[in-house]
Amino acid sequence: MSKPLVSIVMGSDSDLPVMQQAADMLAQFGILFELDIVSAHRTPEKMFDFAKKAHKRGIKVIIAGAGGAAHLPGMIASLTPLPVIGVPVKSSSNTTEGWDSVLSILQMPGGVPVATVAINGAKNAGILAAQILGASDKKIRTKVIEYKAGLKEEVEKKAEGIKKGEG
Amino acid sequence: MSKPLVSIVMGSDSDLPVMQQAADMLAQFGILFELDIVSAHRTPEKMFDFAKKAHKRGIKVIIAGAGGAAHLPGMIASLTPLPVIGVPVKSSSNTTEGWDSVLSILQMPGGVPVATVAINGAKNAGILAAQILGASDKKIRTKVIEYKAGLKEEVEKKAEGIKKGEG
Amino acid sequence: MSKPLVSIVMGSDSDLPVMQQAADMLAQFGILFELDIVSAHRTPEKMFDFAKKAHKRGIKVIIAGAGGAAHLPGMIASLTPLPVIGVPVKSSSNTTEGWDSVLSILQMPGGVPVATVAINGAKNAGILAAQILGASDKKIRTKVIEYKAGLKEEVEKKAEGIKKGEG
Amino acid sequence: MSKPLVSIVMGSDSDLPVMQQAADMLAQFGILFELDIVSAHRTPEKMFDFAKKAHKRGIKVIIAGAGGAAHLPGMIASLTPLPVIGVPVKSSSNTTEGWDSVLSILQMPGGVPVATVAINGAKNAGILAAQILGASDKKIRTKVIEYKAGLKEEVEKKAEGIKKGEG
Amino acid sequence: MSKPLVSIVMGSDSDLPVMQQAADMLAQFGILFELDIVSAHRTPEKMFDFAKKAHKRGIKVIIAGAGGAAHLPGMIASLTPLPVIGVPVKSSSNTTEGWDSVLSILQMPGGVPVATVAINGAKNAGILAAQILGASDKKIRTKVIEYKAGLKEEVEKKAEGIKKGEG
Amino acid sequence: MSKPLVSIVMGSDSDLPVMQQAADMLAQFGILFELDIVSAHRTPEKMFDFAKKAHKRGIKVIIAGAGGAAHLPGMIASLTPLPVIGVPVKSSSNTTEGWDSVLSILQMPGGVPVATVAINGAKNAGILAAQILGASDKKIRTKVIEYKAGLKEEVEKKAEGIKKGEG
Amino acid sequence: MSKPLVSIVMGSDSDLPVMQQAADMLAQFGILFELDIVSAHRTPEKMFDFAKKAHKRGIKVIIAGAGGAAHLPGMIASLTPLPVIGVPVKSSSNTTEGWDSVLSILQMPGGVPVATVAINGAKNAGILAAQILGASDKKIRTKVIEYKAGLKEEVEKKAEGIKKGEG
Amino acid sequence: MSKPLVSIVMGSDSDLPVMQQAADMLAQFGILFELDIVSAHRTPEKMFDFAKKAHKRGIKVIIAGAGGAAHLPGMIASLTPLPVIGVPVKSSSNTTEGWDSVLSILQMPGGVPVATVAINGAKNAGILAAQILGASDKKIRTKVIEYKAGLKEEVEKKAEGIKKGEG
Repeated sequence: MSKPLVSIVMGSDSDLPVMQQAADMLAQFGILFELDIVSAHRTPEKMFDFAKKAHKRGIKVIIAGAGGAAHLPGMIASLTPLPVIGVPVKSSSNTTEGWDSVLSILQMPGGVPVATVAINGAKNAGILAAQILGASDKKIRTKVIEYKAGLKEEVEKKAEGIKKGEG
Repeated sequence: MSKPLVSIVMGSDSDLPVMQQAADMLAQFGILFELDIVSAHRTPEKMFDFAKKAHKRGIKVIIAGAGGAAHLPGMIASLTPLPVIGVPVKSSSNTTEGWDSVLSILQMPGGVPVATVAINGAKNAGILAAQILGASDKKIRTKVIEYKAGLKEEVEKKAEGIKKGEG
Repeated sequence: MSKPLVSIVMGSDSDLPVMQQAADMLAQFGILFELDIVSAHRTPEKMFDFAKKAHKRGIKVIIAGAGGAAHLPGMIASLTPLPVIGVPVKSSSNTTEGWDSVLSILQMPGGVPVATVAINGAKNAGILAAQILGASDKKIRTKVIEYKAGLKEEVEKKAEGIKKGEG
Repeated sequence: MSKPLVSIVMGSDSDLPVMQQAADMLAQFGILFELDIVSAHRTPEKMFDFAKKAHKRGIKVIIAGAGGAAHLPGMIASLTPLPVIGVPVKSSSNTTEGWDSVLSILQMPGGVPVATVAINGAKNAGILAAQILGASDKKIRTKVIEYKAGLKEEVEKKAEGIKKGEG
Repeated sequence: MSKPLVSIVMGSDSDLPVMQQAADMLAQFGILFELDIVSAHRTPEKMFDFAKKAHKRGIKVIIAGAGGAAHLPGMIASLTPLPVIGVPVKSSSNTTEGWDSVLSILQMPGGVPVATVAINGAKNAGILAAQILGASDKKIRTKVIEYKAGLKEEVEKKAEGIKKGEG
Repeated sequence: MSKPLVSIVMGSDSDLPVMQQAADMLAQFGILFELDIVSAHRTPEKMFDFAKKAHKRGIKVIIAGAGGAAHLPGMIASLTPLPVIGVPVKSSSNTTEGWDSVLSILQMPGGVPVATVAINGAKNAGILAAQILGASDKKIRTKVIEYKAGLKEEVEKKAEGIKKGEG
Repeated sequence: MSKPLVSIVMGSDSDLPVMQQAADMLAQFGILFELDIVSAHRTPEKMFDFAKKAHKRGIKVIIAGAGGAAHLPGMIASLTPLPVIGVPVKSSSNTTEGWDSVLSILQMPGGVPVATVAINGAKNAGILAAQILGASDKKIRTKVIEYKAGLKEEVEKKAEGIKKGEG
Repeated sequence: MSKPLVSIVMGSDSDLPVMQQAADMLAQFGILFELDIVSAHRTPEKMFDFAKKAHKRGIKVIIAGAGGAAHLPGMIASLTPLPVIGVPVKSSSNTTEGWDSVLSILQMPGGVPVATVAINGAKNAGILAAQILGASDKKIRTKVIEYKAGLKEEVEKKAEGIKKGEG
């Protein structure tokens, strides 16, 4: 049986509705993934263990989502040589409009990058993971190219509908 | 020889000019402290080790300062039962006016508090540590009371000078 | 009968749903507390009296919650030698997303610290009070350690559930 | 000898370069004033005493300037029946661009207004005090009208100079 | 029949639910007022006429409320010698959390002050108007003092209720 | 048959409820327009083609609406000599209160202006397009003048209603 | 002698270093303009007069620059049928990073648009005025097209230089 | 001769001092790169051509830096199947503290991700590119692991120096 190439982790089960979109996107590209809750603040040992061993298990990209003072993506990045994609998750109870998560993930110090996507942008995290794998895997890159062509068609269909409102 | 009660750690040596003010304040209160660089992102193992063992070495309060995506105070808080005081450090090159550090330190999830002070507020972190120790140590509390009386006198002297400008 | 160690005060009864979480947390740790409304702006004399006498009544930590231009935590801090934990309370009608309360509580001048927690972070204020008491009370510290172990277990159970969604 | 009608107070002597502009403006209108340092956080008793007695001494308007978590204007407003004008003072070391002072002064709860002016707007605080006194004092109001006519002339002179650059 | 002392104007009828609170407050103090819609952007001539003549009709204080790019308070202030109180009004459709109105009203240039109150702070605008009139009218000032005493009693009653939750 | 003078394009069909207001305004002024979906990110070739040819088809003004990282107005502006009006569209799911769209549209580099209107200000975009055409077309300008007179009347009617609430 | 087509006005002579860039751009396009100081707050009557008569004098586009609570562009827009381009001017003493001017100019109510450009974007205001005139004047449009071609060449020359740094 | 694997492009030569750090980092990892100026707004055709052909020339990762309304990274991402790393560049004249560039790069719509790094974080962009290549190239990954070990040693040396200040 094949092993997962992408690991999707999140700080809390309340992040699942957002992070599931990364999983769905990877499934659509036919890329194997694993899903787990790893909390930087409540399960720091598990986080350490996960981050230090991921590349040894064959994982090639890590997607980490977290809200509030979102330390998970940056802490994983400090412990792994793999590219880490960070998803700022804005829950409904988050009272600072998601800025806390964006800044906690984005403003990493020199030496430890996190590839940050938009607030709640888990879908794009999935696509970015595919693009990273596609950098050296032609089959995946072809799927990315086909996916983008699909986006175009979708817009064009909607454009047909809207033109009827012209005055 | 006596052992330190307060541990002052910072993410980078560039934080020292700010964090030294916490040390100076503790020295003024006659409280023993230690100083170290512990980077959440560049020395994560050292941070783990430090945070898990601090209370076993007799440390009673931890003061942690960091800038940018400041994960150090929160990560230490996740690993220690001790109260952790977080100092958002704004370096001159920080381009978001210190909001990134404030939010990364302040907006901790339920279960893992960090006692956050003002941007570059290391002096107040030192005083707060003294107040925490003073909660159960009468001698330290008396020093805090005397310190506050001194603040008052200082203001009153300056007020005398300013009143001459009245019209 | 035992006397309370922690005093929880708030600027308005509308802050109670948030501040009750500090009380619940202290109850869970078996720490005695008192609850009161003390408004910096509407009952300034009561606030003065409360803040100046709290440490003489045996109170060791004060938790103060307030919204809008939240002056209560800082004004109490100016009048007591005790550590003061400030909780920025964001009511639904607060139109600046809680920034006004955060900044009014956090940005205290040198000499008068307030230990600020996250917006609506009253639960963490309760835990922080326990950690402060635990700095010199082994029994309370042990409870904090047990509480943190509980957090970990909770996450691990949820992680089991989520892994079934892997693809 | 006449008594002052306006009291200008500030939280720190570092606020003087800004607050002096209020004094200068009042001097220009021929309105008597007094100047003092009253710190909400370092001299809370003096502040209480000042605020409770000002109207009994014949003061009619209070101008209060403060920076950071600027509690002075709001706390004075809670203790006096007089109108209080608040000046958010932005010192060069203030790292949040003055938002902390604006919000701490502006966002007062229902029942306790502070008449807030622009960041470092002490000159306007002086003019506003004159307008408040002028509401029931024709002589002062006439001076305000003359002052505004002067503003107009000044602009018109500058406009003459600039028109030469037309193309 | 007596003439109004305070003029309450607003930029749109959608501001009425907020601005009515200023009217209610003045009614409670027994101060005569008038109410009108005056739009800086849609009825600029009416605004000019209103602002230039208000003090000749016996008006002593103007309260002006507006949302969005709120030019009404500042423009009236540029045309009258009277004190102008500005109320930033945040409607539900306002997408910048009220910052646009606050800044448009607060950040007036030197020479033309507006006494700004909190977002939607029309109640406080009414109280401030009473305080301004009370600066030279003992009867109104006494009512302000009584009003503040009432605030205190109200808080004290609520405090009784809350103390029962102590643990 | 006449050709459209104004082209209204938007990045997504979800922008239509907002952008329709521009169309309605143009219809009210009797100005011919066309409506289309042109996505900078999903149909970049279509956008290129559209922007490079619009002025050759007789279009005189382009109105472009987009949300999030709103690149459409600026990219069209880089490819056309026509004036481009940009409408920042804030959808309900946009978690940064519309700042992302405002800044992506407003902060264009020297050489490539976009005429930015308020968040969701498509109605004003329609009026601005009419004013631009009216700069050289007297008939359209007269309609703009009449429209503004209508705004005034509307306000005056509402003002009559509100004055009954005076006290 | 020809009459100016574009009127450039600014709230203060301190705005001239920024606003001169609009004049320079128009001169480069060979478009006649006039320059004046018109202060919404200090010369409101002049502003009224200017705005109501500009289109009768043959002016076709107005460029208005202002800082702080920048009411000038919006107030002119409320009084003229011409398109108004607003330039938020950030002076060095402006303590809110230019947000006050941006919001005061951008967030105009429905019915009264201002075409807002970037902070200090006077150069782009000049280009936008040319594009507006070019919508119905082929000669000006051709100059805009040539200007854009020049931008491209400039970039291409710089690109040649930079490529030597490749590794 | 070997071909470059990473393409570093920037919107303006003024971005070079920042973007050079990405080049230096890649050179340190021994990864071949190319450097170019590609302006989304001034050379849109060159940008189109570059973005559509990069992957056909053997480029595997694109690093794009831009300031202000930074459209370059997002527009390239819309035209290439390769992973795009976006660097928000804050020039000294940028008056919004870099938020405009962050939001223009980060808040991309679903379907078109950009891997955003910190403001001026070009060094981290270089490391992230190495991590992406290292996902399928063991030699590069080993260099990343060695680089991270070097960071640790550097911190440890500095920590030795700082400990001498303990009290």
